[in-house]
Amino acid sequence: VNAAVVTVGDELLDGRLADTNTSMLGARLRQLGLTIAAAHTSGDPEADIVLALRRALEDAEVVVVTGGLGPTEDDRTRHAVASLMGAELAFDEQAWQAIRVFIEKRGFPVHEANKRQALVPAGAEVLPNRFGTAPGFVATLDRPGGGCGRVFVLPGVPYEARGMFDEEVAPRIGQAGEPLLQRTLCFTGVTESVLGAKLATFMREGQAVRVGINAAWGFLRVTAQCAEAAALDAAAAEIKRIGARFLIGEGYVEIEELLAARLLEKGITVALAESITAGLAAARLGRVPGISAVLLEAVVAYANEAKQRRLGVAAELLEREGAVSEACARAMVEGLARESGARLTGAVTGIAGPGGGSDAKPVGLVWFATCFDGQVRALERRYGDVGRETIRQRAAVELLLLMLRALPPS
Amino acid sequence: VNAAVVTVGDELLDGRLADTNTSMLGARLRQLGLTIAAAHTSGDPEADIVLALRRALEDAEVVVVTGGLGPTEDDRTRHAVASLMGAELAFDEQAWQAIRVFIEKRGFPVHEANKRQALVPAGAEVLPNRFGTAPGFVATLDRPGGGCGRVFVLPGVPYEARGMFDEEVAPRIGQAGEPLLQRTLCFTGVTESVLGAKLATFMREGQAVRVGINAAWGFLRVTAQCAEAAALDAAAAEIKRIGARFLIGEGYVEIEELLAARLLEKGITVALAESITAGLAAARLGRVPGISAVLLEAVVAYANEAKQRRLGVAAELLEREGAVSEACARAMVEGLARESGARLTGAVTGIAGPGGGSDAKPVGLVWFATCFDGQVRALERRYGDVGRETIRQRAAVELLLLMLRALPPS
Repeated sequence: VNAAVVTVGDELLDGRLADTNTSMLGARLRQLGLTIAAAHTSGDPEADIVLALRRALEDAEVVVVTGGLGPTEDDRTRHAVASLMGAELAFDEQAWQAIRVFIEKRGFPVHEANKRQALVPAGAEVLPNRFGTAPGFVATLDRPGGGCGRVFVLPGVPYEARGMFDEEVAPRIGQAGEPLLQRTLCFTGVTESVLGAKLATFMREGQAVRVGINAAWGFLRVTAQCAEAAALDAAAAEIKRIGARFLIGEGYVEIEELLAARLLEKGITVALAESITAGLAAARLGRVPGISAVLLEAVVAYANEAKQRRLGVAAELLEREGAVSEACARAMVEGLARESGARLTGAVTGIAGPGGGSDAKPVGLVWFATCFDGQVRALERRYGDVGRETIRQRAAVELLLLMLRALPPS
Repeated sequence: VNAAVVTVGDELLDGRLADTNTSMLGARLRQLGLTIAAAHTSGDPEADIVLALRRALEDAEVVVVTGGLGPTEDDRTRHAVASLMGAELAFDEQAWQAIRVFIEKRGFPVHEANKRQALVPAGAEVLPNRFGTAPGFVATLDRPGGGCGRVFVLPGVPYEARGMFDEEVAPRIGQAGEPLLQRTLCFTGVTESVLGAKLATFMREGQAVRVGINAAWGFLRVTAQCAEAAALDAAAAEIKRIGARFLIGEGYVEIEELLAARLLEKGITVALAESITAGLAAARLGRVPGISAVLLEAVVAYANEAKQRRLGVAAELLEREGAVSEACARAMVEGLARESGARLTGAVTGIAGPGGGSDAKPVGLVWFATCFDGQVRALERRYGDVGRETIRQRAAVELLLLMLRALPPS
C-alpha cells in the first residue's frame, strides 16, 4: 500500500523552517508496511493545499497531512479538506471541551479564537490530541482515478504530530503489509564511487533487495531494504564481506551512535574539550540513551583564559602558537585527560569565521587531537570558507570520527 | 514568477534523513523575488522523479531539483530529466576533467564509476561544481500547460547545493522581481490564539501585507511579508505596538540569536553549566557570529564527580538532594559564576530518559538556574516522558530563554 505526505505552511517554503515531519512519518509508515510514494509541501493559501491534497490522493490511498490547524486566520488546512470533500466545517463540542481543558491546565486563558480549532469537516472523525490544543481528524475522500483514500490531518508541531501519529493514526491504519525491513552498514576510508562499483550488481533498479549509498561527512551508509528477512540478511552479509576493511558499524546511525556503541560495549570513559564547536560534539554524544555510563564531562573552553584555567593550557603556549594550533590542540587533550581521568579524550580548536582568519590561519582551519590511554594524535583540516555553521558541524563530526578511530579495533 | 522545488532520494521518504534543501532554496529564491509555489519529494525510481518533475513544471517556470546525481546506480535524476526532454545522456568531456581534478586533489583514486557523473542530457548546459564531484546542469523543458520552464539540477549534499545555487543558479535566474520583503517580531508570555486574535485583521487571505504566526518553544514569531517596504514597515510598527508587552526581539531567529544580540549589545559576558543537555545550549550560542566576544566557557558536567570538580557542587548536597534538584541547579550556577567570572550564567540538570526516572523525579523533570550579577533564580519544568531528544532540545531552548529573561530590560 502506498502513502503520501502533505506538509503545510508558508514557513516551509520561504526559508524560515525546514520540514522534519515527512522524515518522521516516513520511518513510521515504513514500520506499518507502507511506502511513501511522494511528499508534497504547500503554502498557506487554501487553493495550494487543495492542489497538494489532490496530488497526494493521486499517489496513494493513505495520506497524512501536517500543519495549518492553528487557531489563527492563516491556518486553512481544515477548510481545504472540507472544500475537497464538498462538506461544511462543523463545530465539534467534544473537541472544544478538550481544547478548554488543555489550555486551562497550563494556566492560560481560553480564548474565543481557539474555537476555530474545534471546527472539523462534517463527516470527518476527530482525532484527540493530548500533546497540544488542535485536534486532528481523519476523512475519507474520493481519489482522482476512482476509489477512496483516507486523509489523516495532524498539527504541524513536530512532537504533537509524532505523538498523535503513534496514538491515533497508526492504530487506525494497522499493519498494512510486511514492514519493509532495512539494514544499514557504515563504512569509512573509501569513496562512494569505489564502494558503489563493488556493489553495482545490488544497485540496479528492480532488484529484490534495494541497495542505496548515502554519503555522510566522513563516512558512507549503505542501506539494503527488502520485505524478506532471509534475502535481506544474505545481502547484508555479502555487503559486509565486500567492504570489510572499511566497516565501522551497523545501523542508519550518526557518528555519535557508532562511537557510543563502541564506548558502551567496552565501558570506556570519555570526555571532550571543544572550542570552535562550543559543545556540538558533546551534545551529539548526549543524544545516545545510556551515554551517562561513560560520558564524564566536556569543557567548552571558548575564551583563552578558560583554556588555561579548565585545561591547563600554558599562557605562554597560547601566546607563542595561538589557540588554533597543533600545540594547543595537544595541550587541550592532554590537560583534559589529566583533569577528567577519562580513557578517551578529544579536543578541537579552529576558526569558524566569518571573521578572524588570516593568510596563515584562514577561516576553516581546524586542529584536532585525540588521546586514548595516554597515546596522543593530532590532525589538521582545512575546510575552506564554507560558512560558519558548516565548518562547526563538520568539525564536530570529524572529532567524533577521529575519536572512534583512536580506539583499538574491536 | 513562481518557482518549484523537487528533492530526490529514498532516504528522504523512509525516515532516514530530513530534507533541508527546500528551506535553503526557499530563502534564496525569495531573495530573487520568486515565490515557491510548491515543493515535491520523490524517491529514487526514475518514474517517480519524472512525475515530480512534471508536477513542478505545472506549478512554475523555474524548477530547482536536488539529489540523485551521485556516481552509483541508485542515482537517476539525470536519466529522468533526459527522458522528460526526450533526449539522450551525453558524456561531457569538460565535466569529466573537472571531476578528475576534484578527486585527485583530495588524494583519492579516480574511479570508472565517476564517469557516470559526467553524463548530462544532450542540450543541457553543465553547471560546474567546485564543492564536490557531481556537476549540475540546467535544461529547458516544455511545461504541461504550454510554454517553457527552466529546470536547474543540483547535487543533494546540502552544502554543495547551497554553494552551487549561489554561484551558478542565482546569476542565471537574475532578479526575477521585487524580493518579497519580510520582517519578523518575536514575542513571549502570550498564547498564539490571544496574539492571533489581536492581529486578526492582518491575517485574512488577500491582504497586501501577509502576516503569519509560528509557535516556537517558549516564544512566538510573527512574520509580515510584502513587496513594498513602506507598507511592511507600517504593519511591523503596528504589530510591535499591539504586542509591545510581550516583545523580545526582531528577526526570524532562534532563541540563541535573541540572547546573543542582547549580550553583544551590552558586552555582557556569559557562561553555561549543562548536564542533561550536554552542551546543546552552548553549541546553539556558538552558532552566532562574533559570540566569542562574550562567551567565556561552558561546562558539561555530566558525571556527579565533574559537578563537584568543575563547579564546586558539594558531594554532600548531591548525596542529599540528588543531581536533579533545585539545590543542585543553584549550586551549579553559583559555582560557575564564581569560577568563570561571567556576569550571566545559566545551569540545567534533568532526566532525559528513557531510563532513570522515579515517581518523585520522573523522566522529563528539569531544573534550571540563572545568575545575573549575583542574583540567582531557579525554575522547575516537568515536560513529561515526551522522548529523550525532545526533552533535551526543549531544555536547551528554555535555558537560553530564562537567561534572556534574567537580563534587565533593554
